[in-house]
Amino acid sequence: MEKRELLYEGKAKQIFATDNSEIVWVEYKDSATAFNGEKKSEIAGKGKLNNQITSLLFSKLAQENIPSHFIEMLSEREQLVKRVSIIPLEVVVRNTAAGSFSKRTGIEEGQPLKKTLIEFYYKDDELGDPLLTEDHIEELELASKEDVAILKEKAQEISIVLTSFFKELDIKLIDFKLEFGKTPNGDILLADEISPDTCRLWDINTNEKLDKDVFRRDLGSLTDAYEKILAKLEGTQHV
Amino acid sequence: MEKRELLYEGKAKQIFATDNSEIVWVEYKDSATAFNGEKKSEIAGKGKLNNQITSLLFSKLAQENIPSHFIEMLSEREQLVKRVSIIPLEVVVRNTAAGSFSKRTGIEEGQPLKKTLIEFYYKDDELGDPLLTEDHIEELELASKEDVAILKEKAQEISIVLTSFFKELDIKLIDFKLEFGKTPNGDILLADEISPDTCRLWDINTNEKLDKDVFRRDLGSLTDAYEKILAKLEGTQHV
Ligand SMILES: Nc1ncnc2c1ncn2[C@@H]1O[C@H](COP(=O)(O)OP(=O)(O)OP(=O)(O)O)[C@@H](O)[C@H]1O
Ligand SMILES: Nc1ncnc2c1ncn2[C@@H]1O[C@H](COP(=O)(O)OP(=O)(O)OP(=O)(O)O)[C@@H](O)[C@H]1O
Ligand SMILES: [Mg+2]
Ligand SMILES: [Mg+2]
Repeated sequence: MEKRELLYEGKAKQIFATDNSEIVWVEYKDSATAFNGEKKSEIAGKGKLNNQITSLLFSKLAQENIPSHFIEMLSEREQLVKRVSIIPLEVVVRNTAAGSFSKRTGIEEGQPLKKTLIEFYYKDDELGDPLLTEDHIEELELASKEDVAILKEKAQEISIVLTSFFKELDIKLIDFKLEFGKTPNGDILLADEISPDTCRLWDINTNEKLDKDVFRRDLGSLTDAYEKILAKLEGTQHV
Repeated sequence: MEKRELLYEGKAKQIFATDNSEIVWVEYKDSATAFNGEKKSEIAGKGKLNNQITSLLFSKLAQENIPSHFIEMLSEREQLVKRVSIIPLEVVVRNTAAGSFSKRTGIEEGQPLKKTLIEFYYKDDELGDPLLTEDHIEELELASKEDVAILKEKAQEISIVLTSFFKELDIKLIDFKLEFGKTPNGDILLADEISPDTCRLWDINTNEKLDKDVFRRDLGSLTDAYEKILAKLEGTQHV
């Protein structure tokens, strides 16, 4: 496979074309950003950690019959994925109150939720990624009612698999963000990344934060935290 | 009926007990507030305008078989209403994009919506009255799923009646906020007020704003605008 022109550069990844129009080449960057880009930093080693963690998690999901865009890891910071047309929604899955959910509702961070809760945010940097209701999604024509139902169903399934997988590693999966895209034939496919940049992961015994909140809240070394996650995930590879 | 002790003082109204435990005495104040209380002013005459407008609108709804807490107007600034236990949700009904909806979605102010859209905000000043999804409402146990369905149905009905009523007066009803409460026997009843403080009302020909946006955006005399609304509503009284 040949790496061709840069198609898109986001805050965390570059997307390159390949000689196959259905496949893109992803390169994970070392940039860390938070609060809609207001806080920024370069953190050496972050890109390769997220590339490896995402690759392991998408592989795990594939084993559990949950398909994603992931094809294969190419190098420490590169992977091949199926090209999709991203649905401009951040699908956030919450099992425990934290972050903006706690701010919005007044439910204390760390409080387990009665049910797995799914929220949709508008992937729009200019608008500040606002929370949307399903009626807003319909009005904005971001996804059909049927597609929204599929997104919720897939997000629930993924939550079950990831929560129990992380639990085996003594990690609590507090919440996480997913992105989905449409394949050329119209199927909805899990895409983007699943990494400590997009999940809240707490040590099950100490509640130590092992995710991007280390960066957001200045809690210490981000790469140390991500290394811990990667080491645990790699441990499961040889079982 | 006897006016007794002050039960609650809000930003716009005082609620007094009466000698009947099922009835409260409402006194409309001259205070104007916006942006969660950040902008404040006393506007002489506003209280009596809102009391009269609310009384006329609740009477109109009653004629159309839509019950509310309203019993009778007592004086220029006072009315009697059925006491309810307020459901802590602001039920916002939108027919045209404006205000926070335009900010959130990027849909330009003045753009008609494809469908009447209903939003729920958490009545909680400390949290800044945040938008909630139906799942948030369930998690917070603010209202049951069944009650939420009833709120949406009632809000739609009210929207149809008020929209066509204002249209007869050459006024476009852009959006409005409702509050509902529970009666002692568990029925859900429309409560609070419906006034230019809680609606966006635009002159159908000139788009002149005849509502609280005059205060929020410093567009001129608030009482002049509210007087226009009252005069039009009173005109219908003698038909
Ligand atoms: N399989 C895929 N096909 C096409 N685009 C994808 C795919 N997976 C992810 N993307 C998109 O690649 C872009 C780059 O990712 P990155 O995480 O750097 O973006 P971001 O800065 O977080 O978000 P954005 O730039 O979209 O606001 C994102 O817009 C993401 O949605
Ligand atoms: N029929 C009713 N029975 C009991 N309370 C009512 C009734 N109708 C309205 N209320 C409540 O009376 C209070 C006073 O109204 P006002 O509009 O001044 O309050 P606010 O400052 O806008 O809001 P709040 O004080 O609730 O944040 C509100 O909390 C409102 O919900
Ligand atoms: Mg991203
Ligand atoms: Mg009020």
